[in-house]
This record gives sequence, C-alpha cells and structure tokens, in this order.
Amino acid sequence: MLKPVPAKLAVSRRQRSTPYTPRVEALGVSDYSIVNHTVLPKGFGRSVEEDYWHLREHVQLWDVSCQRQVQIQGVDAAKFVQLMTPRDLRKASIGQCLYAPIIDENAGMINDPVILKLGEDRFWLSIADSDVLLWAKGLALGYGFDVSINEPEVSPLAVQGPKADDVMAKVFGEAVRDIKFFKFAYHDFQGHPMLIARSGYSKQGGFEIYLDDSSLGLTLWDSIWDAGQAFNIRPGCPNLIERIEGGLLSYGNEFTRENNPLECAMDDYVSTDPTLNYIGKAAIEKIREEGIARVIRGVQFDGNKTPPCASTWMLSTGGRIAGYISSAIWSPRFETNVAIGMLERGFWDVGQRVSVACADGSERNGVVTALQQA
Amino acid sequence: MLKPVPAKLAVSRRQRSTPYTPRVEALGVSDYSIVNHTVLPKGFGRSVEEDYWHLREHVQLWDVSCQRQVQIQGVDAAKFVQLMTPRDLRKASIGQCLYAPIIDENAGMINDPVILKLGEDRFWLSIADSDVLLWAKGLALGYGFDVSINEPEVSPLAVQGPKADDVMAKVFGEAVRDIKFFKFAYHDFQGHPMLIARSGYSKQGGFEIYLDDSSLGLTLWDSIWDAGQAFNIRPGCPNLIERIEGGLLSYGNEFTRENNPLECAMDDYVSTDPTLNYIGKAAIEKIREEGIARVIRGVQFDGNKTPPCASTWMLSTGGRIAGYISSAIWSPRFETNVAIGMLERGFWDVGQRVSVACADGSERNGVVTALQQA
Repeated sequence: MLKPVPAKLAVSRRQRSTPYTPRVEALGVSDYSIVNHTVLPKGFGRSVEEDYWHLREHVQLWDVSCQRQVQIQGVDAAKFVQLMTPRDLRKASIGQCLYAPIIDENAGMINDPVILKLGEDRFWLSIADSDVLLWAKGLALGYGFDVSINEPEVSPLAVQGPKADDVMAKVFGEAVRDIKFFKFAYHDFQGHPMLIARSGYSKQGGFEIYLDDSSLGLTLWDSIWDAGQAFNIRPGCPNLIERIEGGLLSYGNEFTRENNPLECAMDDYVSTDPTLNYIGKAAIEKIREEGIARVIRGVQFDGNKTPPCASTWMLSTGGRIAGYISSAIWSPRFETNVAIGMLERGFWDVGQRVSVACADGSERNGVVTALQQA
Repeated sequence: MLKPVPAKLAVSRRQRSTPYTPRVEALGVSDYSIVNHTVLPKGFGRSVEEDYWHLREHVQLWDVSCQRQVQIQGVDAAKFVQLMTPRDLRKASIGQCLYAPIIDENAGMINDPVILKLGEDRFWLSIADSDVLLWAKGLALGYGFDVSINEPEVSPLAVQGPKADDVMAKVFGEAVRDIKFFKFAYHDFQGHPMLIARSGYSKQGGFEIYLDDSSLGLTLWDSIWDAGQAFNIRPGCPNLIERIEGGLLSYGNEFTRENNPLECAMDDYVSTDPTLNYIGKAAIEKIREEGIARVIRGVQFDGNKTPPCASTWMLSTGGRIAGYISSAIWSPRFETNVAIGMLERGFWDVGQRVSVACADGSERNGVVTALQQA
C-alpha cells in the first residue's frame, strides 16, 4: 500500500498558474494539487484541522481558478447543454447556478459541473477535473449543433466561511448580501462588473467571484484580503474534513466514468420526465428499471488518525466485499475517522457495520452513515 | 513574475498512482508532475544535470504510465482514427507506431499522441496531457461511428539510454534488439506476452513496454532493475535538458489548442493528399494558402542559469515582439541556456537575434536555432 509522498510539484507552463498565484505563493502555499491542468492550492503550512476550525468560524480566500469554464453559446446552446445533462434545465432562469451531472451514452459520469445560465443562448459549465470542453466540442461537431465552445479566461475566487457576507459587503457593497443561494448577479468592482455567485465547495456559506479580467486578479485578491483583516481572513482551500463531513463529492475521487449519477446519489438531478431528451437517457431508464447496484454513502471508522486515502480501500463484512472508501480523514469534531465510499447493494443501510482495509495495513471497525454526516 | 514553488503534491485517488509507484517511492522520488490525471515522476533528488549526463551515458527506468492509451476498436476504427488526424494512416501496418497530431475543426491541436496500430480494427492513441478519450467519444457518438472507445489498464514503462538494448536483451532475450525504431512486437515475460516498442521521450534510444496487467508491474520493474545493475541503471524521467536539446515538444508547454500543427513544425505529419479526409482539413488548407504566422524553433540565450520557465517569456527584437519561450533550462554541455519557443514570421530564421524577458527580471541576449539543437 502507498504511503503519502512528500514529493514536490514540478513547475511548467502546462500546469497553469493563475492570476492569484503570486499572492498564494507569498502567503506560503505548502501543497498543490492539479485540476484541469491548473494549480489548486491545498495547504498553507497549517494542519488540515487548523484550517477546518478556521473555515467553520471565520472566513477564507480560496484560489479556485482551476474550476475552468466551458462556455457554450449560440442559437443551439440551450438545446445542446440540455442534451449533455439529465438535469431538466428547461425552466432554468438567467442568473441561476445549477449543479448537474454530465454523462455519456452509458450514463457514465463525465463531470459534475455547476452550470451558470448567463443568457438564453449562453452557458458556463464550471467544471471538475476532466476536459469537458473536448467532450462538448466532439459532440457539437459530430451532431452538427450551431454552438461555439471555448474556455474563456475566467478565474473563480472563492470567499468561504460564516463571515464571508461581511467581507464581501465591505468590498462590493451591502447588496451582495441579497444574492440567494446558487444564484449570481453582477456587482461593480472598480468600474468592472464582477459575476458573483452565492456558492462554493464548502457547507460554511460564501461566494464565488468569476473574474473575467486576469489583470484585475491581484487587485481583487488584495481588496478582499484587506477587507478581511477585521474578520480574521486566511488563505485557504477546499478542506477535506469539512467536505467529507458535508458530503461534498469530488470527481475522480468518489466517482469516475465507471459510475452513473444514480449511484452517485444525484437522483435530484436526474429527470424522470419522459419528454426530456438527453445523452444516456436509455441507460438511465435501464438502471432505474433494474435498480442501482451500489450507492455513495458516508462511512465512519475507529482507530487512530487515518493515513491519506490515495487509492480505494476495500470495505467488507463477514468476508464479503461491501464496497470501498475513496476519501478519508480524521475528524477532530467527531473524534473519529470520516470517509466517503461506494457501498454495494445489501450493505448500504445507514448503521451497517463494515471493516475498512486501511492503507497502513490495519483493519478498522466502521459504520455506514448518511452521505452528509455533519 | 513567478518563482519556482517548492509546494508538495497533495495525494488523492483522483491523481492516480501507477503499478510502479511503490518502487518509484522506495527509490526516493522527489518531484512529481500530473499528466492525464496520473503521477509522472520528475526527479529523484539528483540535479537535472546529473540525470542528463547519466541518461546520455547509461540507462534509466522511467514510469511513464501517465501516457494513457485511448483504445479505439470496431469495424469503423480505421476510418474513425483517420478522421482524427491529418497524418495519412492508410498505408500504416500492424506493429507500427505513428506520431500524429490530433486536431479540431479549426486545426487547433488537441493532442500529439503516438498511435499504435494493433490490428486492422484496433488502435491505441498513447496520449499527452488532454482527455482525448472524451474528444473521441463525443465525435463517435455525434457522427455515429461503430467503434468502442475506452482507456485500457495499460501502464507504459520506458527503458531509455544507450545501454537500453543490453538491459532489455537480458530480460526479454536477444530478439528485442531486432525491434526497429517506432515499431513494436510482443515478447514473452514470465509467460505473459508484453508489447514492446522501440520508442520513448528521449533521443538516447530505448524502449517502451506497454504493460497490460498491473499485477505484473512490480515484477517487471524488478526484473529490469536487477538486469540493469550491471549497466549502472537508475530511476529517471523525461529530462528537460535532453528534450529541449533534442527538440522534443510537450503538449501544454510548447503548444496548445491555440496552435495548429504547421506552426508546431509537424509538416511531415500533415498530409497534402487531396483525397484524404480528416477533421480540420479545410482549416489546414487555408493556413497552407496564407502561410503560417509563427513556428516553433530552438532558442539559446546567455547569462547565468535560467530559472524554471513556468509561463511564456516574451521574445523581442528592437522593441518588436518576436515570439515567446515556453520551456528553458541551462545546458551543461553547450554551457548556455537552451529553450524552445514560438517565433513570429519575420523573426524565425536560424541566427535571428532576440531578447529574452526572463522570469528573474533580466533581459538576456538570445539567438534562434533549429528546433533540434543537439
């Protein structure tokens, strides 16, 4: 089994930096990940636990430029975007953010972006880690849709935590407080309209600013940073403890193209309307008919602090395979290890006892929980 | 400007390890990169210069599992793969490796894989860093081709350097010496047929073994490692000095979807046969008619050892923009800095003087060279 590797990330143009990278580096980024060929800060020298408590109590500034936008515009845009997802977008309004599975013809997950409806004929897919742009371009060319597809120079910056509203109000004015959850609006920043959404990859509240002018990146960062000083702002990043407790999934970690959205507990985003057409519909209908074979759940397991989960760890019950864990970490609040995993049919009931084959060679006593544990 | 970041790579299932990772870690990997959502070792604690001299004189074992295979098979496979590239594959034979640009309808580069023709109806695209699988799947679905497209569990292992033949002969038998450049053949390894190609991302000679059974990964690594002891084998990786001197391009570094294959000096792989049909043909014909606006060349520049090139560095001549550099490093053999860059029309002649805007703030005196400098 693998142990955590303290290897450094090699730098190159291919692994793109962001408009905020100079500030992130000046603030002592200690860990990076790569998402969409772009650096994602993953730590600033403090422990994940310290960052966790801080995120729950204060406010953090996250460089999430790696959430690249796949822009789809043109006369066929609405029809085309609908084809790409089983979520019914027909009643979506401009200014809405919609979490949506993107699936292939076998209902395999391609990505799970937040779709921003910018206009009747213009959408952004704010994507997780796969080249959705290539999928979309291939489909559009093959099917002959009249759409233009590109990756605009948009670099999201997240302000997350319970004090996010106060910080944002100081920078953009009191009106930002009125932005509703998973809605966006434009607010002025030094004469430049900024797309601001109430969203983000945490359950602690906050905003994402979709900067579309990289030359304003450092000014934007600094303005929020300065405004945040009164609120104990820190640089941060998606926090593994917080996202596991909150049941936030990660493409490539919790699920891959081998999984369908019903296994991924995305039932709310898979339409049952027979009049809706989308890629993978026949596969979804067949899966619904047969019933899913597995589903994503939370898991908690005992023993000392778990090592990082860099591959799937088998779950078993009485010698039978019950599923696997894909992400795991120690929760200082629950004082046990928390995880997200895929549980096979027959083993997915909340309360089910499982044994966890941990990477350190130990077998831990575990229990299945709801996906959202917190 | 950015300075090199010593941040660690955060581990997770999403950033996939390989069948060889336990050995790579035991041998002290110090740097990682991410290619195709998979770790690529980039250093083992020695300097790039030490690794460079060693690669030129001895033999190295490289974990290049990140070169994922996009497998395309089925009755339409040959027709479909040809549609994806301007390289004429019609006379390709089984057992051949073909370097080939993959382009979109605007002739923009999607990837530059080596295509392995495994059968008349079965191909592998051994890819650089973009999700070609999604592009191919989108196209096939949209156009309605009868092909199946997937990513098989294949993990290439490279043996590179002048002593590669001797090491490989000890493991696979003398017959491996007969494999011709950019050809592949199957040779037995403990009762398992191994696809072995004479290829690799260096100009020092060697092989790539396309392991298709991960459970044999450590045995394969160990067998080559043991056989290599008599030849001073070391763990290694694509070497930046060697690849720049040799003019080997890197997708995402030297070129992106913004570039066409003629700009990328890939004329030999862009057919001029009017009877050949492929995506982007009209765009290629237009570019040929108008002439390219820029082209990839080598560049050398003076001053002390260059810092790493993590973004493009502008080239200028007499106050006019001449292009940019995308990769650069000190060459201990040439005793100057070597680079690869994109030179604008009017500035691309070998011998052209340019000024390099280096990330350390200095302006260096440079000169345009042939792409292959060594």
